[in-house]
Amino acid sequence: MRLLEKTIAMIEDLDREIMKKARNRVDNLIKPPNSLGKLEDIAVQLAGITKSTQPRVDKKTLIAMAADHGVYEEGVAGYPQEITVIQTLNMAKGLTGVCALGRVSNTKIVPVDIGVKVDFDDDSGIINKKIRYGTNNMTKGPAMTRDEAIRAIEVGIEVTNEEIKKGANLIGTGEMGVTNTTASTAILSVLANIDPAEITGRGAKLCDEGIKRKIKAIKTAIKINNIDPNDPIDVVSKVGGLEIAGMSGIILSAAANNVPVVIDGYISTISALIAFRLQPKAKKYIIPSHASLENGAKKASELLGVEPIINMNLCLGEGSGAVLTFPIIDAACEMINNMPTFEELGMTI
Amino acid sequence: MRLLEKTIAMIEDLDREIMKKARNRVDNLIKPPNSLGKLEDIAVQLAGITKSTQPRVDKKTLIAMAADHGVYEEGVAGYPQEITVIQTLNMAKGLTGVCALGRVSNTKIVPVDIGVKVDFDDDSGIINKKIRYGTNNMTKGPAMTRDEAIRAIEVGIEVTNEEIKKGANLIGTGEMGVTNTTASTAILSVLANIDPAEITGRGAKLCDEGIKRKIKAIKTAIKINNIDPNDPIDVVSKVGGLEIAGMSGIILSAAANNVPVVIDGYISTISALIAFRLQPKAKKYIIPSHASLENGAKKASELLGVEPIINMNLCLGEGSGAVLTFPIIDAACEMINNMPTFEELGMTI
Repeated sequence: MRLLEKTIAMIEDLDREIMKKARNRVDNLIKPPNSLGKLEDIAVQLAGITKSTQPRVDKKTLIAMAADHGVYEEGVAGYPQEITVIQTLNMAKGLTGVCALGRVSNTKIVPVDIGVKVDFDDDSGIINKKIRYGTNNMTKGPAMTRDEAIRAIEVGIEVTNEEIKKGANLIGTGEMGVTNTTASTAILSVLANIDPAEITGRGAKLCDEGIKRKIKAIKTAIKINNIDPNDPIDVVSKVGGLEIAGMSGIILSAAANNVPVVIDGYISTISALIAFRLQPKAKKYIIPSHASLENGAKKASELLGVEPIINMNLCLGEGSGAVLTFPIIDAACEMINNMPTFEELGMTI
Repeated sequence: MRLLEKTIAMIEDLDREIMKKARNRVDNLIKPPNSLGKLEDIAVQLAGITKSTQPRVDKKTLIAMAADHGVYEEGVAGYPQEITVIQTLNMAKGLTGVCALGRVSNTKIVPVDIGVKVDFDDDSGIINKKIRYGTNNMTKGPAMTRDEAIRAIEVGIEVTNEEIKKGANLIGTGEMGVTNTTASTAILSVLANIDPAEITGRGAKLCDEGIKRKIKAIKTAIKINNIDPNDPIDVVSKVGGLEIAGMSGIILSAAANNVPVVIDGYISTISALIAFRLQPKAKKYIIPSHASLENGAKKASELLGVEPIINMNLCLGEGSGAVLTFPIIDAACEMINNMPTFEELGMTI
């Protein structure tokens, strides 16, 4: 059995018994019932994921998948393609946005080259898992082969398995890839059966003419690729990206290992949709983070059935919104682990 | 000159020159412009408040004002009044929600007795600044005298001045006071000229009958007290609470000392409205936190002109939403202080 199949098969429902105990504890903490809202839900979810009423998330790891996109040549990006290389290197040096925001929660940032156009030096600090030098231009054929897409998901699984083996108990998804909102929007258009024009956004900083080209490229890609919307691998291979598939693998691995996974914004949510279509149970392991400004983000969250908890008009990607949410997960743990119940204090209300 | 007048007079506009420099720096960090949305705005605001493009918020202090309310006797609370005493003591012991959530950001919690019905022991860990043993029942006359209201604001100022003198460079507002959503809603009804029925909510856990009593009590209090809506001291003295006035003082002190202040949910926002009416410049020093579930919260935020950044259906109070936001303020500082600009890396995009 391939790693992907094996991983999908390993993913179980959350532990209902533990969740019942956790909910009972949370309801009896010294506060009005439900007064900590979603923080309470997260604590119960963490208990169900980790099979413990005292969940721990003290080793946080953000895995960022970097890759290039062949569709870049259609003029759909606001930045030169070289930015993927430059910013992946900067991320490895701890310089980019996700690194700064991640320092607040002492998060380990793990950049992975899953398909950048150039080779990085061995001492770059970037994990080399390159599948190919960027995808093909999806307006002219599939972005990658079916096998490459599966392999990309498996890279996500492998890297995440490894980090969890090293002790990670809270995972975040991140990415770096010029043009990846184009691929994400193509996937969302197919999965949600929506006209790309309705959900195509500005990405990093695309001009109005660029948006027209972006919509056209997505429409063309969908038209020529004969995609089966019920086959998530088919979707991600034909109009997706290597980093998008890789992040689906991160989510599947986290779920298979009973580790909570915080998804970042738009592109991560698209990856989560692919993971969800491959194994619906994976959704229970996902914690949403911020509501991205990118046009399709709201639709993507709705389709996945999650509601972001931070509203700060972010659209950087990299995993920046995921790490910004990590301290909130810490707070949920502090609440369930270290607040007493009325009973423990001998109080009756 | 009284401390209140002196403090109001000390509050200046933010430093526009520093803010311009900070915005310029933020715009040139290695990320697409505006891609970190409100995190960028917060960083610029922090720069303007602290008069430094390298703002620091490493000493966080949450000041929680505790007081009782005479209107409790109208049957408008879901919990017995003794909870104010019990939970203020628990807060001093580090046991309540705000303490748990505050530990994530290493926040010092400072509970202040500004008007609880009983006396605390000297070694309780609660600062004794009692003005009176709870307010009067506002359905039968003013909740307190004008001078007591001013004194309550000044208590907030004194305690905050003291904490800032001890090194606090990020302040949060919190409270403890059974029935204080009743007082808050009365204030909001007056300030926004709205029918209390439109904005009266469940507070901690009020039953449907209780809500009817709460609306009636608020309407009666507004009717009999002959309030001048243009005089914030008159409003807070007649239908407010000691802790609400105290939190207004926290905000005024922070602003006067060039220290950013994060307001919690509904009750804190009402306090901010009082502070804002006393000195409109104080608003620039305020950072909003979470969107409270309490009915009037949205209206209060709109009236103040702030947009909460965390949406987690919290309604605990205590300052819990404020401390949950502290790590986000840390992230804003990490961004502006420790991300490089394109220029610093010798990059041109």
